[in-house]
Amino acid sequence: MDLEGLSINLATVREQWDMRQAVDACVGHGITAIAPWRDQVEKIGLTEATRIVRDNGLRVTDLCRGGMFPAPDAAGRQRQIDDNKRAVDEAAALAADALVLVVGGLPEGSRDIAGARAMVRDGIAALLPHARASKVPLAIEPLHPMYAADRACVNTLEQALDLCDELGEGVGVAIDTYHVWWDPKLFEQIARAGQGRRILAHHICDWLVPTRHMLLDRGMMGDGVIDFRPIRRAIEAAGYSGPQAVEILSETWWKQPGEHVLKTCIARYNDFCR
Amino acid sequence: MDLEGLSINLATVREQWDMRQAVDACVGHGITAIAPWRDQVEKIGLTEATRIVRDNGLRVTDLCRGGMFPAPDAAGRQRQIDDNKRAVDEAAALAADALVLVVGGLPEGSRDIAGARAMVRDGIAALLPHARASKVPLAIEPLHPMYAADRACVNTLEQALDLCDELGEGVGVAIDTYHVWWDPKLFEQIARAGQGRRILAHHICDWLVPTRHMLLDRGMMGDGVIDFRPIRRAIEAAGYSGPQAVEILSETWWKQPGEHVLKTCIARYNDFCR
Repeated sequence: MDLEGLSINLATVREQWDMRQAVDACVGHGITAIAPWRDQVEKIGLTEATRIVRDNGLRVTDLCRGGMFPAPDAAGRQRQIDDNKRAVDEAAALAADALVLVVGGLPEGSRDIAGARAMVRDGIAALLPHARASKVPLAIEPLHPMYAADRACVNTLEQALDLCDELGEGVGVAIDTYHVWWDPKLFEQIARAGQGRRILAHHICDWLVPTRHMLLDRGMMGDGVIDFRPIRRAIEAAGYSGPQAVEILSETWWKQPGEHVLKTCIARYNDFCR
Repeated sequence: MDLEGLSINLATVREQWDMRQAVDACVGHGITAIAPWRDQVEKIGLTEATRIVRDNGLRVTDLCRGGMFPAPDAAGRQRQIDDNKRAVDEAAALAADALVLVVGGLPEGSRDIAGARAMVRDGIAALLPHARASKVPLAIEPLHPMYAADRACVNTLEQALDLCDELGEGVGVAIDTYHVWWDPKLFEQIARAGQGRRILAHHICDWLVPTRHMLLDRGMMGDGVIDFRPIRRAIEAAGYSGPQAVEILSETWWKQPGEHVLKTCIARYNDFCR
C-alpha cells in the first residue's frame, strides 16, 4: 500500500508514545509524514526532534499548534504573540509545511465574541512578519462552533478565508473534517480556498453519533457519519495534494495499544479516505 | 415589571410541571405568553390545552415542534410529513404564532448530509400547502452545528434563509441564541431575515463554559457567554417585536423547584435580555 498520502498527527497516539517512539512506529509501517504537537517536541527537545525528522526523511505536515491570541489585557496578548513567535521558530526548525493556529476563544469573563475575533486578527497580523521572514506559513484552523467560547472563535472555513483575505500573504487554512463536515458552504469555500492557494493542511477525523464528550470523543474514520472522499476530492481539485493527517483526540483510542491504533489509521485511511 | 416581552417555553419546566400547572404558575407571575411542546399538549389533550390558553388570554409564541423530515425510505418520509400535518393542526387550534421545525439529521446509517438536506427541503415543501391553508407559519429553527448529524441538518441562519427563499411564502425562521450566538454572520443574516419578514420566533438560552452535555446542559441567561441585548436589538430592528421565549433544556434547572426556575427566568430576562 502506498502511504505517501497519509500523515499521522501524533496527538492520535499521545497517551501511548512519545515522539521518538511514535516516529519509530510510523516509519516501521512505511509512513513518511507526521504532525507533532509542541509539547511532544518539547518533551524530547527541539534538537532531538529535528534530528529524528531529518534522519528518517519525514515530512512534517504541520506543527500543532500556535494561536490562543485573545487575552484580557494587552500584556497578556503580547505574551501570546511572543509564544507564537517561538512556535514559528520551532516549525522552521522542523521544516514543517505550516504552523497550525487554534486561534483561541473568549478571554476570561468576556461575552464579546466580536472583540475576541478582532484580537485574533490583530494577533496574527503581529505574528505574520516573523512568520514570513521564517518562511513558515500560518494555517488558521476553523474549529467546530461548539468550541467558539473556549478554544477558537474562528468557526467556519468562510470566516477563516475572510481573515486570510484581510491578512494577505503567508497565511492560509487547515481543513479538519471533524470541524467542517457539517458546513453547508463547505464545498463552495474549499473551491474559494483553492483560488487563493490557501489550503495548507488537511486533517481527517470522524464525527461519532452520539458524541459523548465535546473534546475527547472524536472518531476513527469509518466509525462516524463523515463522507471523507468527496471532501478529499474537492481539496485536491482546489490544488492541495499534501497528505491527509489523522488527528483523533479520543479517550477510547488512547486506551488502545499504539500499534493497533496505527494499523487502524492505515486501514481506515485506505478504506474511507483516499 | 412589564412582562409582555417574555414567553416561557414549557420545556424549561417540563420535569416539574404539566402544561396546566405551568400555565397557572406563569399566569401567577403575570406572564402572558408561552410556548408548549407537542407532548405536553398531548398529555392533557388538545381540547383542554386550547381551553387553558384561551381562558387565560395567553399568546402562544410557538408550538414545539414539527420537523424530523429525513428517513431512510419514501414511506418513512411520508409518515413524517403526515405527522407534521397533525402538528400544523395542533398549532392552528392553539392559535400559535408559528410551528417550530427542528428539521432532522441524517437518516439511520447515512453519511449523506446533502441528501438529508434535500429531504428536509422536500418535506417542508410537501407540508407547506397544508400549513398555508391552516394559516400556520412554519418556523425553521437552525440548530447548532453539533446537532447536524442527529437533530437538524439546517445549522446556520443563512442556510435557513436560503431554504426560505427557495420555499416561498409561509415559512420563516426561529432564532435561538443558543444555536446561533457563535455565527460570524449572525447580524448580517438577522438583517437579511428582516427584509423578507422571516423572523417568526426568538428563543433565549445561554451557552455555558464548560458545557458538560451536548443536549441537556443549556444555560440560564447570565450564566454563560452570550451577549443577549445586541442580538435582541438586531431582531427588533429587523421587524420582529414578539416575546423572547426562554427555552432551557437543562438537567440542572429541571432539578430546581419550578417556582424558582420561573422567578429566575423573569429576573434574568430583565437583567440581561430586554
